[in-house]
Amino acid sequence: MTHRIAILGASGYTGAELVRLIATHPEMRIVALSADRKAGLAMSEVFPFLRHLDLPPLVKIDEIDFSNVDLCFCALPHATTQEVVARLPRDLKIVDLSADFRLRDPAAYEKWYGQPHAAQDLQAEAVYGLTEFYRDEIRSARLVAGTGCNAATGQFALRPLIAAGVIDLDDILIDLKAGVSGAGRSLKENLLHAELSGGTHAYSAGGKHRHLGEFDQEFSKVAGRPVLVQFTPHLLPMNRGILATVYVKGDAKTVHQTLENAYENEPFLRVLPFGALPSTRDIAGSNFCHLGVVGDRIAGRAVVVAVLDNLTKGSSGQAIQNANLMLGIEETAGLMLAPIFP
Amino acid sequence: MTHRIAILGASGYTGAELVRLIATHPEMRIVALSADRKAGLAMSEVFPFLRHLDLPPLVKIDEIDFSNVDLCFCALPHATTQEVVARLPRDLKIVDLSADFRLRDPAAYEKWYGQPHAAQDLQAEAVYGLTEFYRDEIRSARLVAGTGCNAATGQFALRPLIAAGVIDLDDILIDLKAGVSGAGRSLKENLLHAELSGGTHAYSAGGKHRHLGEFDQEFSKVAGRPVLVQFTPHLLPMNRGILATVYVKGDAKTVHQTLENAYENEPFLRVLPFGALPSTRDIAGSNFCHLGVVGDRIAGRAVVVAVLDNLTKGSSGQAIQNANLMLGIEETAGLMLAPIFP
Amino acid sequence: MTHRIAILGASGYTGAELVRLIATHPEMRIVALSADRKAGLAMSEVFPFLRHLDLPPLVKIDEIDFSNVDLCFCALPHATTQEVVARLPRDLKIVDLSADFRLRDPAAYEKWYGQPHAAQDLQAEAVYGLTEFYRDEIRSARLVAGTGCNAATGQFALRPLIAAGVIDLDDILIDLKAGVSGAGRSLKENLLHAELSGGTHAYSAGGKHRHLGEFDQEFSKVAGRPVLVQFTPHLLPMNRGILATVYVKGDAKTVHQTLENAYENEPFLRVLPFGALPSTRDIAGSNFCHLGVVGDRIAGRAVVVAVLDNLTKGSSGQAIQNANLMLGIEETAGLMLAPIFP
Amino acid sequence: MTHRIAILGASGYTGAELVRLIATHPEMRIVALSADRKAGLAMSEVFPFLRHLDLPPLVKIDEIDFSNVDLCFCALPHATTQEVVARLPRDLKIVDLSADFRLRDPAAYEKWYGQPHAAQDLQAEAVYGLTEFYRDEIRSARLVAGTGCNAATGQFALRPLIAAGVIDLDDILIDLKAGVSGAGRSLKENLLHAELSGGTHAYSAGGKHRHLGEFDQEFSKVAGRPVLVQFTPHLLPMNRGILATVYVKGDAKTVHQTLENAYENEPFLRVLPFGALPSTRDIAGSNFCHLGVVGDRIAGRAVVVAVLDNLTKGSSGQAIQNANLMLGIEETAGLMLAPIFP
Repeated sequence: MTHRIAILGASGYTGAELVRLIATHPEMRIVALSADRKAGLAMSEVFPFLRHLDLPPLVKIDEIDFSNVDLCFCALPHATTQEVVARLPRDLKIVDLSADFRLRDPAAYEKWYGQPHAAQDLQAEAVYGLTEFYRDEIRSARLVAGTGCNAATGQFALRPLIAAGVIDLDDILIDLKAGVSGAGRSLKENLLHAELSGGTHAYSAGGKHRHLGEFDQEFSKVAGRPVLVQFTPHLLPMNRGILATVYVKGDAKTVHQTLENAYENEPFLRVLPFGALPSTRDIAGSNFCHLGVVGDRIAGRAVVVAVLDNLTKGSSGQAIQNANLMLGIEETAGLMLAPIFP
Repeated sequence: MTHRIAILGASGYTGAELVRLIATHPEMRIVALSADRKAGLAMSEVFPFLRHLDLPPLVKIDEIDFSNVDLCFCALPHATTQEVVARLPRDLKIVDLSADFRLRDPAAYEKWYGQPHAAQDLQAEAVYGLTEFYRDEIRSARLVAGTGCNAATGQFALRPLIAAGVIDLDDILIDLKAGVSGAGRSLKENLLHAELSGGTHAYSAGGKHRHLGEFDQEFSKVAGRPVLVQFTPHLLPMNRGILATVYVKGDAKTVHQTLENAYENEPFLRVLPFGALPSTRDIAGSNFCHLGVVGDRIAGRAVVVAVLDNLTKGSSGQAIQNANLMLGIEETAGLMLAPIFP
Repeated sequence: MTHRIAILGASGYTGAELVRLIATHPEMRIVALSADRKAGLAMSEVFPFLRHLDLPPLVKIDEIDFSNVDLCFCALPHATTQEVVARLPRDLKIVDLSADFRLRDPAAYEKWYGQPHAAQDLQAEAVYGLTEFYRDEIRSARLVAGTGCNAATGQFALRPLIAAGVIDLDDILIDLKAGVSGAGRSLKENLLHAELSGGTHAYSAGGKHRHLGEFDQEFSKVAGRPVLVQFTPHLLPMNRGILATVYVKGDAKTVHQTLENAYENEPFLRVLPFGALPSTRDIAGSNFCHLGVVGDRIAGRAVVVAVLDNLTKGSSGQAIQNANLMLGIEETAGLMLAPIFP
Repeated sequence: MTHRIAILGASGYTGAELVRLIATHPEMRIVALSADRKAGLAMSEVFPFLRHLDLPPLVKIDEIDFSNVDLCFCALPHATTQEVVARLPRDLKIVDLSADFRLRDPAAYEKWYGQPHAAQDLQAEAVYGLTEFYRDEIRSARLVAGTGCNAATGQFALRPLIAAGVIDLDDILIDLKAGVSGAGRSLKENLLHAELSGGTHAYSAGGKHRHLGEFDQEFSKVAGRPVLVQFTPHLLPMNRGILATVYVKGDAKTVHQTLENAYENEPFLRVLPFGALPSTRDIAGSNFCHLGVVGDRIAGRAVVVAVLDNLTKGSSGQAIQNANLMLGIEETAGLMLAPIFP
């Protein structure tokens, strides 16, 4: 059976990545694409790399007949999303890729996003979309909130460790390196090739990055008490990929064993042998997350490195994985594409 | 039905690309992988990006039982290939990705490759693997010789024009821009990131590049008389992709119409509207070739631009396309992966 | 003696490159910097890489007291430049880096730039700034018009050949590869790192690029009869550098000898031994232009390759070279910085 | 007065960078260049970007007449250096860029480099070349040992903090991001453009990187008691530049003030305003090091970010700075080149 899919906000990178993945998905078919400012254009005019596909034209959201849609991916900007989702049919399955429904607490949302939430009932209903940890809730959810890409990377490294109580909860540090597609198709000076290539810098350092809202919510929930981590993201001259170097205090072998146990049956999460560390090059374009653990020369300290593709496992691939569950399809359907290298 | 596949020379980029594509091919299964110097290793040690696949270990060629193999891809270096292929079972279907069987004339081979051919009977038997122009021969071939990646790009731009007699045969110029993966996984100073990134240069200029042997053979055959083209390749700081800017003397609209007519039913060749030109970014990682035509301000001159991914349509994707035909599978099976962008 | 320098339009790449070069120029001192939209900021806020310099703040043009300025570099956008220059003191020495005064013929200007010229008297007065060919005029000029960066590259390859009559004037083809800084600090989608890196495309193909106006004017003047060339620029994933592959019909050795003779005393132009070709990597960040010549396998055809850094020899370095002449300074002063590699 | 300079090991990146910088140094002249395996070649054959310079040919070390040399830069590989230096005239001033004389303790050398030191008397004599902290010793030294590039970056961030006692000495973490030129002109698979570009990975994690030997030696000396830091380097797809993100426990404002005070008169070290963080793009090709400090949301924790160009301030620029002192020249001579951007 083929499920009918709509994508709202198809003119951004996560929208295009959804189309790329659905192009070879055996049980999904795109029936509607929206892009407000580019309505009227063909998708191939906005993204010529999708030229070979037979796709519906870009329209405004109001032009879509949702009665013909089984599931809707919402890849709209933060803040506008909550208003759009509030107007969608109440029985439509929705996977949202924005930040609007990730935080359950209205106060936390307001703190990190600078304004009150406009759809608090939906906020309460939404299931957090980190598939491997919310599988059952997602299966029966109507509205799933895709995680931040950085937030997903850090959580894959840390959730089992926090749950198992094998690390010091008061001294967790995430130094993260991110490719530029995570910033979206935004016209900003520092995203120009001439400015970005050949160098690196830290940003939102010292506890200012919004994905900390997700870390705080989830890690505190897992631990059963408040957990605050340090988090410094860096922008790298590469298009795809996130590498999180996570510093913890705990026994390195125990840390490794805990991750291995937690993920041994996970199709997309791979824990490398103890001492081996992963590269973002090995997961580009795929839905895989690779993790490695090494002990420090200072006893009782360990380094966990996690890598994933921000557009795939960190966003659109995760979204399809969640949609598969919501539609009763095999969880891995359409997502076993091998990474691309070189 | 699943066909059993062997890949000889799996430790190079074209070998790895074959594995990447076969990973999601519905009717092929890899049963043997060889890599002489890396025999004994797992494929995931040589290419960690393939870590998620359940693959046979790398062995030496002599360790492979070819009676269990339906088709063998041969991704070995030039020159050694002809000796290896000569020793393979005579009834084994072979798609060769090296340069060894591309040139039909032993004298031409010796001229371009600097030594006599060691398997002239096989050279005579081999079918030239430019699928779109040798489909019928490939279907019934035992040994297919994959084309040079540059040679494929130039031919897609020019064969229909030469066949139709719409351009001046004595003034054809191919200025080609190639990504670095075409040079293979070779340890050369000029392929280091520190040396290659951020700059460009021409190489093998003035008629010295070996792919000219293919252009001479094929264009002369199509034209029914000798055709010599000018050809200058340039190395660009990008990993995948070839862009051929082809300068011809002829009416631009006729040139465009001729290409459109020639390729209107081709699943992988896309001719853009007149005046639009393609980008390598739009075919990366895919088996597609995009072509565009623009007229020059000087009447009677046209520019044709063709782009493809050297590792896919220019090599391993083409090889699988040919294998599909040889095995009686749908020609596009496993090859409809969308390009990856950004 | 130290000459007092003003730079108008200091917030773009050519403005910043002027500052970079003047920072170690022994006889120039920056006394004024303008940037209309960024007036009030420090230069180090707009370009932190200039943080170590003691520079005047960015102001609006009208705030500059030109009586304290010996020479003014004008790095403003095309079209607005002519109005600004018309309002500057009539005795101020000006080196303009825009396109506004490159074309001497008002009709040619209107054809290529789409509007009538607003300062035709200045247009008539301006000297074309290709230093090596206009040295004497530049020495005594008040207003010098810097060349297009592509136009400079092509002319270095071709002017001596056209002047000497050693090539066919009706079959000249320039296939050019350009780095992205030539497009300036413009917020355009196709200049984003995520869009530009890892691929290439042709643009303004078929005779539409504005630098053709310069080629037409200069080559026709040198030849004493109309000369029209073919010209296709390509955008490459690199920040600095232009490589022009120039195809001519003529004897290759004669072509090489002609260039060697023409440039043997030039401090910035280097002709490589016959058969050797240059790389953009070897001139990055410097005022040098390297040229190479190779013969084609088809007798009577030659390939000339010229490389330079678009921001230095193609723009700001050229501008300082011209300013040196206008101020009576040693022509190479401040310009002998070695290229940077890797 | 012009000092006569020899460079041993001129065919590597640090050797070439020395030549690049000396090319515009007002008081140094290169009289000898060695490169064992490339003896007999011109420097321009090994590094065409230096083509414009009039340089002595590459020779073997034994062919150099050191009686005509005032100072010798030694840019040879680790381990072979100590034997070469032991054979040089005892009155020759030497700046060594290898690791051979950085560690004062023979046991520490053997621990980190895996073999006993072959010239322990020289090891005892050598002065550690971190100019800003060893100025007086360097002025009168005969043999100066250039620091590791990572070691320099980390020390600029930490030495004043350790000396002032404003941070917890038992919880210092350096997460470092390094460009690829630091790995030298080595033919390794993972340094190929096709392998390195577009991705990142950690290496020598957990306390295995040799530059830890320098951190241990220097930080313990400054603190007056053993100090062990955590250190994880990452390889980034960029050619030049190191960014060290240093996590400390201490009051952020105090940390900032301490660095500001320490470096207020340093010509090459710039501390940004509190809260601002530097980018490697802003120091590329220059001898500058920029530092920034930000406080974490968790009270009592601070992040210090330091950036420098590994080939310049991290190696060859530092070497010239030291040589200037040893020769009695102005410390900044030849080193005030502006960074290059973009």
